[in-house]
Amino acid sequence: MAATPVWSVDPRTGKQREQVAAEATPHDVDRAVTAGHAARGALADRPARTAFLRAAADLLDASAAEVVAAADAETALGTARLTGELARTTYQLRAFADAVEDGGYLDIRIDRADPALTPPRPELRRYKVPLGVVAVYAASNFPLAFSVPGGDTASALAAGCPVVVKAHPDHPATSALCASLLRRAAEQAGLPADVVAVVHGFDAGLELIRHPLVAAAGFTGSIRGGRALYDAAAARPVPIPFHGELGSLNPVVVTPAAAAERAEEIGAGLAGSVTLGVGQFCVKPGLVLVPLGADGDRLTDALAKALGATGPGVLLDHRMRENFLAGVRERAALPGVTAPVTPGPGTGPDGEHTVGAGFLTVPARRLAAEGPAQGSAEDREDGVAHDGEDQGKDHHDYEVLLEECFGPVTVVARYADQGEVGAVLARLPGNLSATLQLSDAETAGAPGPAAELIGQVTELAGRVVVNAWPTGVAVAPAQHHGGPYPAATSHSSSVGGTAIERWLRPVAYQSVPDALLPAELREANPLGLPRRVTP
Amino acid sequence: MAATPVWSVDPRTGKQREQVAAEATPHDVDRAVTAGHAARGALADRPARTAFLRAAADLLDASAAEVVAAADAETALGTARLTGELARTTYQLRAFADAVEDGGYLDIRIDRADPALTPPRPELRRYKVPLGVVAVYAASNFPLAFSVPGGDTASALAAGCPVVVKAHPDHPATSALCASLLRRAAEQAGLPADVVAVVHGFDAGLELIRHPLVAAAGFTGSIRGGRALYDAAAARPVPIPFHGELGSLNPVVVTPAAAAERAEEIGAGLAGSVTLGVGQFCVKPGLVLVPLGADGDRLTDALAKALGATGPGVLLDHRMRENFLAGVRERAALPGVTAPVTPGPGTGPDGEHTVGAGFLTVPARRLAAEGPAQGSAEDREDGVAHDGEDQGKDHHDYEVLLEECFGPVTVVARYADQGEVGAVLARLPGNLSATLQLSDAETAGAPGPAAELIGQVTELAGRVVVNAWPTGVAVAPAQHHGGPYPAATSHSSSVGGTAIERWLRPVAYQSVPDALLPAELREANPLGLPRRVTP
Repeated sequence: MAATPVWSVDPRTGKQREQVAAEATPHDVDRAVTAGHAARGALADRPARTAFLRAAADLLDASAAEVVAAADAETALGTARLTGELARTTYQLRAFADAVEDGGYLDIRIDRADPALTPPRPELRRYKVPLGVVAVYAASNFPLAFSVPGGDTASALAAGCPVVVKAHPDHPATSALCASLLRRAAEQAGLPADVVAVVHGFDAGLELIRHPLVAAAGFTGSIRGGRALYDAAAARPVPIPFHGELGSLNPVVVTPAAAAERAEEIGAGLAGSVTLGVGQFCVKPGLVLVPLGADGDRLTDALAKALGATGPGVLLDHRMRENFLAGVRERAALPGVTAPVTPGPGTGPDGEHTVGAGFLTVPARRLAAEGPAQGSAEDREDGVAHDGEDQGKDHHDYEVLLEECFGPVTVVARYADQGEVGAVLARLPGNLSATLQLSDAETAGAPGPAAELIGQVTELAGRVVVNAWPTGVAVAPAQHHGGPYPAATSHSSSVGGTAIERWLRPVAYQSVPDALLPAELREANPLGLPRRVTP
Repeated sequence: MAATPVWSVDPRTGKQREQVAAEATPHDVDRAVTAGHAARGALADRPARTAFLRAAADLLDASAAEVVAAADAETALGTARLTGELARTTYQLRAFADAVEDGGYLDIRIDRADPALTPPRPELRRYKVPLGVVAVYAASNFPLAFSVPGGDTASALAAGCPVVVKAHPDHPATSALCASLLRRAAEQAGLPADVVAVVHGFDAGLELIRHPLVAAAGFTGSIRGGRALYDAAAARPVPIPFHGELGSLNPVVVTPAAAAERAEEIGAGLAGSVTLGVGQFCVKPGLVLVPLGADGDRLTDALAKALGATGPGVLLDHRMRENFLAGVRERAALPGVTAPVTPGPGTGPDGEHTVGAGFLTVPARRLAAEGPAQGSAEDREDGVAHDGEDQGKDHHDYEVLLEECFGPVTVVARYADQGEVGAVLARLPGNLSATLQLSDAETAGAPGPAAELIGQVTELAGRVVVNAWPTGVAVAPAQHHGGPYPAATSHSSSVGGTAIERWLRPVAYQSVPDALLPAELREANPLGLPRRVTP
């Protein structure tokens, strides 16, 4: 059987650029995983790992022009954005190197023996060890920061886990280039190159999740693809953790007071957030609750003006473009939905490759018509305002407005009162983020809906943002990028300092003599690691 | 349809004692979960939660005689053991009350805004929030400490999650009594009684795991039952975390030097660990690697003597007794397996209700004959010593010796050299514990197999024990009770301070004004909680 070629495609023209590789066969996948597994002993050396992560960052920086050009040719995301993304990527690699050096992630706890207790307590020393080979499924929309050299890879390597990346088909050349740089960095640090490998192809992705030596997986992508892999991970003879980020609507609530105070600013800011990266961010605001009335109208006017002034953009591939256009058409055709600025095919000579940004509006009560998909009978009794003229209409049609539409579009739901806001929020699935736009008085604690809203959105999101926009997820120790399903399939974060926790498991050593303990746990603390001691 | 009665049965006679309850219908399960969900707001009050947990411990202590009598009548575990187990249970409840008060489990992290960074970092404040209603599947073998008032319940309540316990059918009266005490404690602390509820029945357990408002589950039991529930949890429209403890072989390795030094002591200690609680501990040593030769013979002689002197015991129910006897028969019938002390039906007038303890022996090379079940091609090439006379024998028959046999029996595998030890260890699935018996010189770091053994058992267990026995799992901050699958279905611990982490998820607040932050995250730290701040 001839190998299936993997092509790099230019989304600006839809044309094949070059053949990058062949799809990995089951044998290729086995070889990559087995080689990674064999390299895990070498990767257990923390100083070598630290040097490796820093060398990887340095090599990527030194190859910035080449990396950014490769990524732009395949993704059309533009040099400015990709230069920023590369900086984020190398920052992440260095931050995880620092985390390895610091050692706090080992979560060392020591309980001294206490024979006076009933029953007597033996000595216990606990830290965390790496899980083994990690499978990383790269995202389409961040060819660097959530792809081969991205956060999943960096955090898994930092934990001491070899990585096999299933490359995203939208940027195979960038993936191959980054993999070669990471492998060179490993060798510079005295580690086997096989601590990182890349495989291409849909079937290879399935082989990978089922491989007995794969110990965990990270994924960023669609609900459909992510759920299929989640199910495969759970169905293994030995199930493994699957940390997937599957999709998010990222609701925004604008209070009446905020609309009164900053309608134009909010409308313009929203347009910027919706169109950033041509609407291809996982934290793009996809549903915005705006009050009915003149202030809300000013907001949507400003949004329309800003979106109308946004030039057409190129999506990551032509299938996404078709899905985007079809998704907008399906939503715009629902009764009661209007499209003040219709997102659609681009204009001009490149129109067949581009899309224009826009937004839809819908009365919020249409979205509140049914109880929450996940809710109990009790919840279903809450705040449901039925609409006489729609009694014959199947309300499930509106479900699609509560699903992510990848691309430069958002849905503005106009609400009459706070009850409608609560009823819509109660119907939402899990989200990566939820954003509140509040007035000055509300941020200062004035009476109003703000406190209740904070509580409501905390239940449905992993990050709560006030008077800013959810796009732009800071790489920082206190960050949390995750949330209830389907935002994430686990309760871990894929961004920030805690992302390393996904690839570790605790081991406790009971009454193990000092000479036989790992250096990290020895009484004299030769590595100077942080530890919590119970006397 | 008439309700199915739930009977309390005396395992000492096999006779029904009393009808305790009826099996829960789907409506009953929905009512318990919905009531728990409605009570979660009240349970969010940390001082009330702390008072509740302490009141529960106090009420259990005050009812000790009644609770221990109820548990003994249903489990035959004996007053002494059950009194100790109750003490462990109330200690756990109080330890989690202290943990709630301390607040370290909230894992608060604060990153100050830094506009000088590229890109600028917004202010981020992160802590953890409870997941929602937790389903707890109680264990048969700890009617208190891993049942209604046990570690899963205590840690989930401490996290702020209401609990619905699926009672174990082996102790329904104890479950009902403990539930009534917990519910009374909740009311004493000003909380709704519905923060804890109990349901009975196999079908109720399935209803529970599928209920949309159940947010996570804890389980202690068999691989078969646990895997079925794990699969149901993963197959939900919204999958939920399933923290299950499914079974463990708990291997022990005795080095030649240890056998030379302490053969009799090790043999007697092993007998005590194997027969504790009539061999019904999840950390019972089920496979013991003992060197061939005179020292090893002395060890097995001591083991035989101690086991022979152990009186018959009553297992938790008659089905377990039948499974135990059948399991022993199946193993003892394998070629090469001997039974120096045959575990079997008890003797005397109660013989039909009791079992006697014993052990089997097998050459270690028989267990090493095949590659590891989970291993790669590379692993399968390691240390495989084929045995001429067994070439025609299906080596998979010996697999059963690597499976847990619940009850007072262990398998002693006699090894010729260190290669055989490594080859057997490489074939084992995940374990809760692994134990090494070492000589004095080896514990002091003398050359020998000890260092390699520590590395080998760290790969396959959640707790490594040296020169002690794995039974008796200390409730302590550094404890880890878990391990690679099937020991546990997740990488969390079900015992000790970190057990609370299973029921929480992080939320990050970005640029949220102080007046709207949860009290736990406010700048002035009004609750005096521990926090990690990045300036």
